[in-house]
Amino acid sequence: MKKIVLLGSTGSIGVNTLDVASRFPDRFRIVGLTAGENIALLEKQIKTFRPKIVSVLKEDAAERLRQRCRDYDVEIRSGVEGMISAAAFSEADMVVSAIVGAAGLVPTVAAIRAGKDVALANKETLVMAGEIVTKEAEKKGVKILPVDSEHSAILQALGSHEKDSVKRLILTASGGPFYNTPFSRKRLIKPKDALKHPNWKMGRKITIDSATLMNKGLEVIEARWLFDIPSEKIDVLIHPESIVHSMVEYIDGAVIAQLGVPDMRMPISYALGYPERLNSGFPSLDLVRIGSLTFKKPDTKRFPCLSYAYEALNTGGTMPAVLNAANEAAARAFLKEEIGFLDIPKIIKKVMDRHVRQNIVTIEDVLLADRWAREQAEDFIKRS
Amino acid sequence: MKKIVLLGSTGSIGVNTLDVASRFPDRFRIVGLTAGENIALLEKQIKTFRPKIVSVLKEDAAERLRQRCRDYDVEIRSGVEGMISAAAFSEADMVVSAIVGAAGLVPTVAAIRAGKDVALANKETLVMAGEIVTKEAEKKGVKILPVDSEHSAILQALGSHEKDSVKRLILTASGGPFYNTPFSRKRLIKPKDALKHPNWKMGRKITIDSATLMNKGLEVIEARWLFDIPSEKIDVLIHPESIVHSMVEYIDGAVIAQLGVPDMRMPISYALGYPERLNSGFPSLDLVRIGSLTFKKPDTKRFPCLSYAYEALNTGGTMPAVLNAANEAAARAFLKEEIGFLDIPKIIKKVMDRHVRQNIVTIEDVLLADRWAREQAEDFIKRS
Repeated sequence: MKKIVLLGSTGSIGVNTLDVASRFPDRFRIVGLTAGENIALLEKQIKTFRPKIVSVLKEDAAERLRQRCRDYDVEIRSGVEGMISAAAFSEADMVVSAIVGAAGLVPTVAAIRAGKDVALANKETLVMAGEIVTKEAEKKGVKILPVDSEHSAILQALGSHEKDSVKRLILTASGGPFYNTPFSRKRLIKPKDALKHPNWKMGRKITIDSATLMNKGLEVIEARWLFDIPSEKIDVLIHPESIVHSMVEYIDGAVIAQLGVPDMRMPISYALGYPERLNSGFPSLDLVRIGSLTFKKPDTKRFPCLSYAYEALNTGGTMPAVLNAANEAAARAFLKEEIGFLDIPKIIKKVMDRHVRQNIVTIEDVLLADRWAREQAEDFIKRS
Repeated sequence: MKKIVLLGSTGSIGVNTLDVASRFPDRFRIVGLTAGENIALLEKQIKTFRPKIVSVLKEDAAERLRQRCRDYDVEIRSGVEGMISAAAFSEADMVVSAIVGAAGLVPTVAAIRAGKDVALANKETLVMAGEIVTKEAEKKGVKILPVDSEHSAILQALGSHEKDSVKRLILTASGGPFYNTPFSRKRLIKPKDALKHPNWKMGRKITIDSATLMNKGLEVIEARWLFDIPSEKIDVLIHPESIVHSMVEYIDGAVIAQLGVPDMRMPISYALGYPERLNSGFPSLDLVRIGSLTFKKPDTKRFPCLSYAYEALNTGGTMPAVLNAANEAAARAFLKEEIGFLDIPKIIKKVMDRHVRQNIVTIEDVLLADRWAREQAEDFIKRS
């Protein structure tokens, strides 16, 4: 029985994780849940999965929840401290880190420091602090298992191969809803258009990141740390059908790819069951019905966010955290219609240009850079 | 240093094997060569690779070769016995079995009995006698490594997975040059048309088998024995671009595929270096240039050979050997323009219909069935 704490249980990945876990009651037990503000859903989850520890963002919500769950044997906490205590919960074997954005960094690090294996959907943890987080994980002997479909595909395609035999990782990208939209019409894009992803059902923020290709940029940085592969060996291909989830090319010219229907429950199930595959009853891939799989080179002129991510990765230090924070601020402002779609990359670029790279020694260095970049971005947002 | 005997050195796979081996002189040493009638090429190969043992089909050719190679330290034999002694050559670690057709069975079995790992291009060995050959290999603790691109792809896609986690194997087939040719025009097909394979440069016999889809049928039978997977878990997909060489679908819905440029040197290099990948300098796959990968259901009405192969596999016993022998006779007759393209499946079907399945206990049982089926096929060929 694997005991699991799920950070971010009411988001898209959280809900799918509970779906997967509930298919294998003999194998997985949910011992902890954390959520932000969707208290109604969290309450239902508590009553269904009977966790022992729960944490929410705010103390008043925690208090309401305590009232409503008083017949259940559950400890309900709040705030960052509550989240950390859930992440480090003594009974847990694995922590699923499914919090959206930079807010996932601190609790994920807490889980690693407590020696828990981590199923990582929060890519920001590795984008912001990949070097120190992977070192910490190695020191503690904990596994970081990707939940992103691309990184899960790469983990599967790597199998038991030595790193020496890898020529390059090839991350695929759907290209999002605007890949073929002419530049001139992109300034008219509204949040509701950007939230219509052609293949994947995901949360709001990651859907915007897909539309700008920043999501792929963040994934390049994540892959660099997750697989310890330098950036020049990580390529991106546009693959509009989202069937080939990613590939590994080897030194002998062979390419191993992982394919499947676009359903987040599949990479989640792979991370939860790793290294075993679970008989989850998910739908089979029907390549005959799909008919054709296509591939294109990414157009970084029209989608500069991807280049900015490589640039941040190659600069290193605090720069990836700055890229990420500026992007979060810009995507949030776009969702609130404070800025246009084309302003997102512009704001990121301006913040990066203004940043002086610093080395990262502790998580606090990362959090400082994150805060600085958000302030800068807000400044540019106000002025745009 | 891996010492290799190459059976069938002057054929397409043989020549490619020497190309691969010559790229790694510190890793592979060719200690034996056998060939049929291309004595001129064999002589060149002897002088380049300096094997210690050589065998040819006929004694007079052997005698000529002895004269021409008298300055070389090489023993030159002839006939089936010569071939067997090369296959069982005491110094060899691995035997590459690249003889075309049923003639490869006896020397391949000799190699296994002598405890040599086998890189198997001669699929007929497993088609005709899969059950006893794989048992023998297991008993001797020898590995049978596929050289066919499809089976190599499956071996790569299986990685270190347990057989229990496999839902099905998916062999891809280009469909050959006539996949879209209307039935009415297929009766006009000439050998020179059939020998133009769209993607692969291969020998004459296998190219005809590709055009009838019998090649894929033989591969289904080969896969059944090589991976110990029942026929109902082996599917075929038409994939005209020949880039995805085959796939494995797992119980969790994930599909792992192996892709690459269609170049036989790649599966050969995988078999020679297994489990290590060799840095062979073969060209990278350029999916952007290829643009699109397509998949269709095989049309077994228009290409009945594929169904006959499943039928033979499910009948078992001597039936697959009969299928194979009838096909070899029919393909040979088509190449000599004794019969038309559409007569190939008809003759195979007639021979199978006349055959009464027998159990296989020894290789001799297989050879008897093979001889019987050839006689029957020749009989039908004369009358057609």
